[in-house]
Amino acid sequence: MHAATLMNPYFAVIFTSKLKQPATGYAEMAAKMEQLAKQQPGYLGIESARDTALGITISYWASEQAIKDWKNQLEHQLAQKLGREKWYQHYHVRVAKVEREYEFNHMDDVL
Amino acid sequence: MHAATLMNPYFAVIFTSKLKQPATGYAEMAAKMEQLAKQQPGYLGIESARDTALGITISYWASEQAIKDWKNQLEHQLAQKLGREKWYQHYHVRVAKVEREYEFNHMDDVL
Repeated sequence: MHAATLMNPYFAVIFTSKLKQPATGYAEMAAKMEQLAKQQPGYLGIESARDTALGITISYWASEQAIKDWKNQLEHQLAQKLGREKWYQHYHVRVAKVEREYEFNHMDDVL
Repeated sequence: MHAATLMNPYFAVIFTSKLKQPATGYAEMAAKMEQLAKQQPGYLGIESARDTALGITISYWASEQAIKDWKNQLEHQLAQKLGREKWYQHYHVRVAKVEREYEFNHMDDVL
């Protein structure tokens, strides 16, 4: 998914994780959390990809407060607890302020 | 790969991309660039994952200058040009300053 975030300032939460195997029920929980995140104030977008070794999810937010509110949201709290108990071998969360950005789009019509 | 970056301040370059298909030669070029990046001053680590829809690569750097130096490195410049001509449908680069972070490790020995 392409996150439309071309506005400043905003924040990225970089979430990298390794799952224990089998991670039964993880994909469903992740999809549910993504739907819930979209309803939070200050949510700007989400992008994720997963290889066998590593999953990366980046969510974008309008403010630090929006990040804290989402972290403390009740259903998300329960999901985080379940994640630590059942699914995650490791995770690392980095909160970063986006300072500059640029994009490239391939133009089919100028070939 | 787990990027060991528990020091502040530092920067993350969030690179998200969509490839044209087939992307012949892309994986080899990406691996070569990762090897070159590791030799740059200020390099701290790299993490990447790719789904069919989206690839995410995050590289970590000690300073903005280190990021600029890597962007302008000669072989990397050629790879970027080739990428725009051959492989990328779209990409988005965000330079972000990591403000805080935390980790979770599952402890097998306390189960």
